[in-house]
Amino acid sequence: MTTTVSAMAATSATEPLTKTTIERRDVGPHDVAFDIKFAGICHSDIHTVKAEWGQPNYPVVAGHEIAGVVTEVGSEVTKYKVGDHVGVGCFVDSCRECDNCKAGLQQYCTGEGGMVGTYNATERDGTPTYGGYSQAIVVDENYVLRIPDSIPLDKAAPLLCAGITLFSPLHHWGAGPGKKVAIVGLGGLGHMGVKIAHAMGAEVTVLSQSLKKMEDGLRLGADEYYATSDPDTFTKLAGKFDLIVNTVSATLDLAAYMGLLATDGTLVEVGAPEKPMVVPFFPLGAQRRSLSGSMIGGIPETQEMLDFCAEHDITPEIEVIAADYVNEAYERVLASDVRYRFVIDTATL
Amino acid sequence: MTTTVSAMAATSATEPLTKTTIERRDVGPHDVAFDIKFAGICHSDIHTVKAEWGQPNYPVVAGHEIAGVVTEVGSEVTKYKVGDHVGVGCFVDSCRECDNCKAGLQQYCTGEGGMVGTYNATERDGTPTYGGYSQAIVVDENYVLRIPDSIPLDKAAPLLCAGITLFSPLHHWGAGPGKKVAIVGLGGLGHMGVKIAHAMGAEVTVLSQSLKKMEDGLRLGADEYYATSDPDTFTKLAGKFDLIVNTVSATLDLAAYMGLLATDGTLVEVGAPEKPMVVPFFPLGAQRRSLSGSMIGGIPETQEMLDFCAEHDITPEIEVIAADYVNEAYERVLASDVRYRFVIDTATL
Repeated sequence: MTTTVSAMAATSATEPLTKTTIERRDVGPHDVAFDIKFAGICHSDIHTVKAEWGQPNYPVVAGHEIAGVVTEVGSEVTKYKVGDHVGVGCFVDSCRECDNCKAGLQQYCTGEGGMVGTYNATERDGTPTYGGYSQAIVVDENYVLRIPDSIPLDKAAPLLCAGITLFSPLHHWGAGPGKKVAIVGLGGLGHMGVKIAHAMGAEVTVLSQSLKKMEDGLRLGADEYYATSDPDTFTKLAGKFDLIVNTVSATLDLAAYMGLLATDGTLVEVGAPEKPMVVPFFPLGAQRRSLSGSMIGGIPETQEMLDFCAEHDITPEIEVIAADYVNEAYERVLASDVRYRFVIDTATL
Repeated sequence: MTTTVSAMAATSATEPLTKTTIERRDVGPHDVAFDIKFAGICHSDIHTVKAEWGQPNYPVVAGHEIAGVVTEVGSEVTKYKVGDHVGVGCFVDSCRECDNCKAGLQQYCTGEGGMVGTYNATERDGTPTYGGYSQAIVVDENYVLRIPDSIPLDKAAPLLCAGITLFSPLHHWGAGPGKKVAIVGLGGLGHMGVKIAHAMGAEVTVLSQSLKKMEDGLRLGADEYYATSDPDTFTKLAGKFDLIVNTVSATLDLAAYMGLLATDGTLVEVGAPEKPMVVPFFPLGAQRRSLSGSMIGGIPETQEMLDFCAEHDITPEIEVIAADYVNEAYERVLASDVRYRFVIDTATL
């Protein structure tokens, strides 16, 4: 038995997304069913839909920034009840048995196949996963997050990927008072990084290609804002930062960016650069610097992020759209023409 | 006033090293003068002499693994007295004012020009520095190390570069009981890494191109030994190591090596690879792994390393040579035909 729900799907790498219906499983003993109210659009959705990260299993119903309201819970569910505000991020299951799963680092699950992606993946029962561009979803309660009441659901959605993608490395690498943090790129990810790092008490600098969004950056919490198109930036800021989080997927001149790090500083890539990164030994070895990568966050840390955002009144800047605007929104994401995250109102599906 | 001492110098990138004389400054109030008894041959010496790291200032008297006996101390010297066994590593001075110098991380001195190299550099008084392939040296007491009596001077010499180059990253990244450490390459650096990591209590694996030196590796303290020419190695050991220290300067397939790291693992480069390193995002981001670089160690840590080696009876495996064998030794270093470090007996100068 399944339930049919409306969704927005990609059927090929080149066709526009279109409305369709998908099936959601019946609520099992440990499941939470919820009506999706809002779903954010992440650049990963576009990469997947357009087959830029390998051939997906069409139809793809993208969306892993999902916020809604619980409509039904399974007989064994203890964490949620009907009416709760909940969310789902980039994964809906994992092996639950590896050291990482046990430690709450489900995003780094080392079980066979790793975590189960929220879309374009396969559930353990063999059915394909479909994401947030749809009206309802059924997820095991252990992979559901509680959205604090003070965060409106439309603004909560992007926290589930953009928010945690920045919170996790900032938290892991110790952003806080006395630390100098640079955020590279002021887009969907970057603008969350500025807000979160600022709330953590770090001194925050935005490194953006131009100064076009400078006013925004400072308003969002940045202490300083520099253009990376200006070579002087790399001289002025040499050796300054304890942590740089790069949200940009375009190829950076890593030797130059590494030079901006202090001794023992780390540059963390979260923007999933498509091309291999190239970095000479010297800027690493000469100051014991590191190049690292980070990917979203585990369930406990994602909950911590949501609670942190509620406590510090942090929400993304969003543009709410109707479902039939998704294809145009994709074009605008690719043109960096959004401040700073599109969120689909799934009532329009 | 200066003192003339015998030395072995390179006069160009292509000519063999030849015997010559150099001048050493008179002992200032804070200086320690010592007779050099032994000087190790480091691959860096060859890179410098052959102008592979930029045009050096000929003549170059290489050698930054220096061990000897104090012959004179300045009026203000408090740490050393005549007859003490002492050593000098890769630098003889630094700015003493930057945060790193104050923290004892002189190797990462951020003062103008950084640390003053033991050779092919310029002292703060403007004179060129000459290294250990010579009979005597004069160094500020703050840049001199105490060699514990239990370590013979010939075996102490390589600790001042090869020893600290491995000790520092193993120490900084927490090698110890419960940690799985891989050492890439079993040469002058790598064999010290095996001994030190083993003494620190880590589980040690050698990753070498072939199994030729396997017996040696296990004897030196490795728990396991694998050939990187065997693709199965990368399957068998996937996700195993907390720390990999790469001592090899040849270009590695970093994507493959990164796959050997556990979640949050770090691959530290100490072999100063000549070509830029290339690493895709995925193996970093998918397990929050890091690529880092490390360079020798500061004065306090170098002293700690010497004391650690004395306590754990760790010394390098060496081949003592006469000065006129240096050119042949260089050829053998380039052919990896030494187990594991050449040490010049400077009495032969």
